[in-house]
Parts: sequence; structure tokens; C-alpha cells
Amino acid sequence: MSVSPEFSAMDVGNLSYRYKDFIIINPLMRGGIVPKSVTERLCDEGWLEVGYNLCHDCIEGRSSLITKPNVKEFLSEIAVFFGGDEAEHTFGCRAAQFAVMKTISEVSPDGVVLSDPNSHYSTNIAAEMCGLKVVESPHTGYPEYKVEVDSVIEKIEEIGNPALVVMTHADPYYGNLAPVKEIGKVCAEKEIPYMVNSAYTGGVMPINMKDLNADFLTLSAHKSMASIGPLGFLVTTYEWSRKVFALSKSKPDWTGRAFGKKIPNVFGCSIGGLPLVCAMNSFPYVKERVKKWDEEINKTNKFIDAMEDLGDIMLLGERPHRHHLLHFETPLFWEISKKHRRKGFFLAEEMIKRGIVGLHKGLSKHIKLSVYGLSDEEVSKVLEAFKEVAEISA
Amino acid sequence: MSVSPEFSAMDVGNLSYRYKDFIIINPLMRGGIVPKSVTERLCDEGWLEVGYNLCHDCIEGRSSLITKPNVKEFLSEIAVFFGGDEAEHTFGCRAAQFAVMKTISEVSPDGVVLSDPNSHYSTNIAAEMCGLKVVESPHTGYPEYKVEVDSVIEKIEEIGNPALVVMTHADPYYGNLAPVKEIGKVCAEKEIPYMVNSAYTGGVMPINMKDLNADFLTLSAHKSMASIGPLGFLVTTYEWSRKVFALSKSKPDWTGRAFGKKIPNVFGCSIGGLPLVCAMNSFPYVKERVKKWDEEINKTNKFIDAMEDLGDIMLLGERPHRHHLLHFETPLFWEISKKHRRKGFFLAEEMIKRGIVGLHKGLSKHIKLSVYGLSDEEVSKVLEAFKEVAEISA
Repeated sequence: MSVSPEFSAMDVGNLSYRYKDFIIINPLMRGGIVPKSVTERLCDEGWLEVGYNLCHDCIEGRSSLITKPNVKEFLSEIAVFFGGDEAEHTFGCRAAQFAVMKTISEVSPDGVVLSDPNSHYSTNIAAEMCGLKVVESPHTGYPEYKVEVDSVIEKIEEIGNPALVVMTHADPYYGNLAPVKEIGKVCAEKEIPYMVNSAYTGGVMPINMKDLNADFLTLSAHKSMASIGPLGFLVTTYEWSRKVFALSKSKPDWTGRAFGKKIPNVFGCSIGGLPLVCAMNSFPYVKERVKKWDEEINKTNKFIDAMEDLGDIMLLGERPHRHHLLHFETPLFWEISKKHRRKGFFLAEEMIKRGIVGLHKGLSKHIKLSVYGLSDEEVSKVLEAFKEVAEISA
Repeated sequence: MSVSPEFSAMDVGNLSYRYKDFIIINPLMRGGIVPKSVTERLCDEGWLEVGYNLCHDCIEGRSSLITKPNVKEFLSEIAVFFGGDEAEHTFGCRAAQFAVMKTISEVSPDGVVLSDPNSHYSTNIAAEMCGLKVVESPHTGYPEYKVEVDSVIEKIEEIGNPALVVMTHADPYYGNLAPVKEIGKVCAEKEIPYMVNSAYTGGVMPINMKDLNADFLTLSAHKSMASIGPLGFLVTTYEWSRKVFALSKSKPDWTGRAFGKKIPNVFGCSIGGLPLVCAMNSFPYVKERVKKWDEEINKTNKFIDAMEDLGDIMLLGERPHRHHLLHFETPLFWEISKKHRRKGFFLAEEMIKRGIVGLHKGLSKHIKLSVYGLSDEEVSKVLEAFKEVAEISA
């Protein structure tokens, strides 16, 4: 079973792909780092050897109902952990959002979705897939870009009766936390369905969707639950679960077959496979780590201070910062790039030379990064590297 | 990063999960066995350590456009290999089918889909997700259950003008090959869009969709392309690609953001992750193995003869058999099960004792299996095990 040597799509001559030799600071990746004990187990037990590896003993007709291994129990634990009633695994958080939008489009075919303006594109695409129009509440603009309760309420009243309100719990641009609890209270009072997209928060910080009055919580295993992707989860209430997780009603005419265990909104069965096996193995670790969120936020804010001390560097987004995703304006590096022969590429490349990967290649005017889950020693290495690079005179 | 020992969802006390110690005969899994050189590489290089691991250097805005690693080139190769013009990776074959159905539902909102009666449920669910009604052509019934050209043509004429004709290339019930080329000719003449679901064939046998006159070819990486799942592909023509892979047109009002690289029918971007990294690494092996399809079919038909020689056992589906998925009627084992203290479970359990996993637990009246990709020595072991179990007097 040897692989012919001429194929080279993976051999990009770029050591940054050998993750294990580097400190990763890509903010999309930090929450998805898989514990070593889990990767070792998956490799040792041969889980990679069979591509279609979870459904071995499926007699239940849907991967979320399997009890060997106990996916069913795992999904119950996920629902409880996030303060919901029912959970299904999905093909990433985007597929969870799609299931919500699909449901809303059936309940309110011409409905308008009100979203915060810092949503991930997958929220907008999910709405587009279901023919739903998205209207945005404003943010506060440079440099904090915050979503404020009043402006959301104003927009709700302007629309009249949105079919769905979506808040991006921590946004992918600035790592701001939206006022999800306050908005939830308003939605509950007005009886507007409410979805919180927790792709960047669920699995790193404590979340209880009942406290938020959320009807739908969407999650990303590979972004924030220490798991291989693509995998997400949709957690919802008993009430909504009957709609969003409704079973198939189709019955083709000649065979008269029925597919009564399948949930159309999640493609019948969302397979799961290795990502789900991984998420199950990582979950005990995830449950523990969310308890350390305050420590992570302290570390993050100290890191922000130290970065800004390097010179002409400023954090965008709210401060004190309440999430690990950091977006800095970096005129300091921009100035160096202007004279550097590698232009904007110098920054990511110089960091890689120092064992640190994850900066967007080519950018030096703005950078996004995270030190979530890094040890003090690793954070010091990251800072030291930035300091050295800041002293480069091109 | 240790995982607390109390979590036991994976510890099902069932050695059959330690795939590497067993011969696997589950027919859904044989085509998805990953070459050892690939699993070793993925483990050694630390690809499992980062859950969100493909998008490290994404500056293109969609995983199918990434050139480091070269996903874009890989998808071109996939399109060429299957005789198509454009390919996108998807969240499994079901998501590829959804993209097709979604496109058809926009072109023909009240359209009827004509499908063969042996379709995988995911075909029917994809249609249901898009509000399309499925009408079936008949099969020939017991014991061959064949799909014949004339009955499909008759049904096409009865419907008048189906919005889409779907043929399941090799079906999941009997492993029959549908007359995909002949039907394609009819669809081309009548200008009916035509989809061939190759989840069980693409990656094990040679397929050229141009030869089949297919507009859409749907594929499963974890079922037939030696890859970790969930992953699939949709291959199509230039003409249809403009519709099925159309870019996002949504533009939320306040920010005015556009998502012009995203393809709504595949969730904007289908991520890929480890499954895609795996499929890319396995592809050279897949390209080679399809050349040996005739040998596999010879081996399979010899195996069928040897199984039927054991006693009261009969293959269902067409003969000679042209696919590796085998469905036997096994009164021989059914008789034993009646008197056995483990009832229908004895068969799978006795096979596991002999190092062979993959029979559906609890079933002894009918069994489904495959010897695809097994060495002669392994096939002999499988036969020997069945022979021993057949001699059990309960």
C-alpha cells in the first residue's frame, strides 16, 4: 500500500505545516489544539486506518443514536454542558447554523434575520442558502467595534418582528464578546427566536444557553473544542428540537421506503467519523479547561499590555479584552515592511524562523493572534520573538 | 493535557474497534481503508494535533482555492480523473447530492426527481431537504433486484420531463451496477439533467463521467477513496458548475460586506480539514488501484462461489457480480442461530473470535460483506472462518 512518490501536493516545502515543531498562534486554531493523549490514542488504536470508522456497529440508523461507542450519551452530555436540552453533531458550526436557518425559513418564509455586524461569513451564507435576508445592527466603529444592547434593540424595533436574532458570541474580527445575555432577555420578552453562534467560545469559556435565553447554540469542535474537524454541534431546547431535528417524512413511491430515523436538517445523519471520535475523547479535557477561562483572560490582557509596550502597536476591539482572539494594529511592523525586501511577508516569515507560526502571511499592518492555552514559557517566547522582529531594521 | 480517566464513551469493551488487529469485511468500509503510509505520515507529522489544520495559510478565502497545500491542483486532478471539468470537496457524498438537488430545485422548483429504487437514503434526504419529490423506477425483484434500462425509460416517459434523473452507480443493498451509460444516453437525448451517485464506485473502479453523459458525479472519500471522513466530492461540467458552484451574492445591509469567494451550495467553504489532507495523500494510491478493478471482480466472484459451496447460502443481486459489495441470503446461519444461545448474534461474534469484523451484529439470515482490497491469504482466512462457523452445531 505504498504511495507513489511523485505526488507532491502536500510537500509545499513549508515547515510551518509540521505543527508539532512550532508554537501556533493562529487565533482560529488555538481552541482546536487536540490534547496529545488523544492524538496518541487515535494513532495507536488505528482509528485512522478506516476512513468510515464510527459506524461500525450502527444498528440505530443515525450516528447520533449509536451507543457503541456511546455517541448518544456524549450528545446528552454536550447538551447538558451547554445548558440545553438536545444536541446533534453537524458538519461544522456552519451546518448547525444552516439547520437553524432552514427551520426559521420554514416557520417564517419571508422572515428577516437580524444579525450583529461582526458575524462570521458562515452565518450570512447559511441565511443565503435558506433564502433569508440578513439585516445588521451597527457596531461602535474604530477602535472598539463593539455591539451594544441599545443599538440591537433599536434595530429589532425598526424591523418590527425579526424571524431570528443572531448574536456572534465572540466575533472573528476583534474577539469582542457581544451582550448575549441582555439581548437574550429582550428576545425572550418579545418571543423572537434567538441563536447564539459560539464557534469561538463554546469549549473555551463557560456557557449556559438557558442563562442566555438562547433557543439555539451553534458550536465548532475544531475551532474551540480541542477536536479534529470538520465537526460542529447544534444545541437547542426541547421545544425547538421538534422542529429543527424533525425526522424525515419522505417516502419514495415505488419502494415505499421510509427513513424515519433520519433528520433532514442535518443531512439525515451527519456521519461524524474521526472528528467525532476525537471530540468524544477530548471532551473531558474541554470540560476541565473552561474552568480556567479567567486565568486565560488574565494572561491575554497581560500579553496585550506587553505587546503594546513594544512600540507602535495597538489592540483593536474592547478592553479589557474578554476573549483570546486578538487583533492588533501594528504600524511598527508596517514601517519595517516598507523597507524590507520581503515586504509584508517579512513578519510571518521572521516569526516562523523563531519557531512561531500562525500569522497571516503578507500582512504586517494588522495582525490577529491568540496565546490561548500556551504556557507562560511559550507566551514569553512569542513576546521575545515579536520583540526581536520589532528591532529589525530592514 | 491529560484526559481524565473516568470518561469511558470510547471504552466499549469491544475489541472490534481496534481495527488494526482485525480483518475488516464491512462493505461500507473496505473502499475507505487508508494506506498505512498515509496514516503514518499524518500521525508522524502532527496533523492530528491541530483540529483546524488545513487553512493555516489560506489567503484565498475558500479551502478549494488554497495552493499551500495544493488543494486547488488536487481538485483539478479529481475532476480530470473522473472525466469532469470542475470539482469541489464537500461534507460527504450527501452534501454533494444536496448541492445538486439545491441547484435543480432552483432551476425547476416543482420538479420531480426520478431515481432508481436502490438509492442510498442520502439521495432521498437531499431531495427532501430541497423540497423535491422523488419518483422511483422499479427493479426486477428477488433475487437479482436489477435496474433495467427499459423500465427507467418507461418511467421517464411517464413523468414527462423529470427535473433530474439519478442513478445509484453501485447500490448499497445488493452491489448491482446500474446501467448508467445507457441511461445517460437517454438523458442526453432528452436534455434531462443527470446525476450519477458513485459513492460506492468512484475510487475503486474506473469512471469517466463524460462517457456516462453525466452532468453530476457524487463521490464519497471515506467510502471509496481510501480516506478519512467525512468527505465527499462533487464533479460536474463547465456548464453546470456555473450554477451549482455559483458564488455568494449576499450583502448584509449595514456593513455592506460581500462574500464573493464563497459558494453557498457547499456552505461557503467546505473546510476539508484532516479528511481532505488524508484524501490528497491517498489519491496516488487510489489512481493506481482502480486499474486493478478486474482482478478485484474476479476475486469477488471466486469468493461468491466458495461461499455458496459452504451450504445453504445464496448471493442476492446480479451475477456475475460486478461490484465488491455482497449481500448473501444465509439460511445455513439462520438455522444455527435458532438453536444458539446467542441467537442471531452468534455469527458476528464467532467471526470476531476468528479475527474478522464487520458483519452486522444480530443478523444471520442475511449478511453483507466485501473482500475488496484483501490479499488472497486474507480472503482464505475469511472463508475458513465462515467454514468453521458453518460447522458449529449450536
